[in-house]
Amino acid sequence: MKKPVAILISGRGSNMRALIEAAQAPDYPARIACVIANRADAAGLDEARALGVPTHAIASKGLNREAFETQLSAALQASGAEIICLAGFMRLFTPDFTRAWYGRMLNIHPSLLPAFKGLDVHRRVVESGVRFTGCTVHFVSPEMDEGPIILQAAIPVPQHASPEQVADAVLAEEHKLYPQALRLLAEGRLVIDGPRVTIS
Amino acid sequence: MKKPVAILISGRGSNMRALIEAAQAPDYPARIACVIANRADAAGLDEARALGVPTHAIASKGLNREAFETQLSAALQASGAEIICLAGFMRLFTPDFTRAWYGRMLNIHPSLLPAFKGLDVHRRVVESGVRFTGCTVHFVSPEMDEGPIILQAAIPVPQHASPEQVADAVLAEEHKLYPQALRLLAEGRLVIDGPRVTIS
Repeated sequence: MKKPVAILISGRGSNMRALIEAAQAPDYPARIACVIANRADAAGLDEARALGVPTHAIASKGLNREAFETQLSAALQASGAEIICLAGFMRLFTPDFTRAWYGRMLNIHPSLLPAFKGLDVHRRVVESGVRFTGCTVHFVSPEMDEGPIILQAAIPVPQHASPEQVADAVLAEEHKLYPQALRLLAEGRLVIDGPRVTIS
Repeated sequence: MKKPVAILISGRGSNMRALIEAAQAPDYPARIACVIANRADAAGLDEARALGVPTHAIASKGLNREAFETQLSAALQASGAEIICLAGFMRLFTPDFTRAWYGRMLNIHPSLLPAFKGLDVHRRVVESGVRFTGCTVHFVSPEMDEGPIILQAAIPVPQHASPEQVADAVLAEEHKLYPQALRLLAEGRLVIDGPRVTIS
């Protein structure tokens, strides 16, 4: 039985596409049950529909977190989702929501955490002069860009690379890493041990 | 003309050995003019002497920073050193000393900076569950473990690795990286551009 997954997006969701395409493989252990956006104009919604995935838009603007999450939980329940993958989802959750999904909700961050948490990562990477960057798939915990790390990929930062060039190179790694991490979770091979994840 | 280098140590200085050995190659652009320890019992002193390098011990215990640096500066001047390489040197400098040597003083730190500054790095790396770590050679600036990054190396952290195993794996990278960075500096190929270093 493939594990049903909901992907949450706010924009174009390029990782959404990577997950949907990976899940089309017959032996992939998860299927994308729905894509949910917190903006009706999220570009990823059209793309998800074109790829045959049901979509929902729940406009979060003007809603407080609790009101938004009530609608979100209803949509998740209706879809049967057992796993959530955040893909450029730009809204923070309440601790209650995070706790309810702890161990079943993944995020991808475009840096080698714990370095470069937060936004505007690639500009900060380039300006800092580091020689390596990468991406991180982690379980979502109440603190932003924290939570047990599942997989990381590291790539060199070429001299004189622009933030856009670094973003493109990291994104190519993200599109490989996120489906790998979701596979491990869907296969039941991830064990959370305090701040660490063991892959069995 | 090979650039004269002083290596500063507090203990065994395994990176000291790597630098001395690298500098023995005929085409290496630097020579180790002296090894200076801030403890008379630093194990690296005997090793440096056995490798034919002049040594000095300047006991820092009980001296304030200014008094220690006065003696250190005299020893550096006597040795003719134009570059300082810190190799496990456990004493902080005054901002004045750091400024005087800015662009000519290197340090190596056993993490992928800016992650895991400070001490006890490998235990913290293992407990955090990160999948990559590494080492960083950087110019020394007044803030500890900051300063423009010259070179970094990244290596995977195997599951279930102990801090000691990670330390050994990182140290093997350090012993390659530090001589490479010193070579670039001695060849005049490093340009500091604000927080960044460009290799020409």
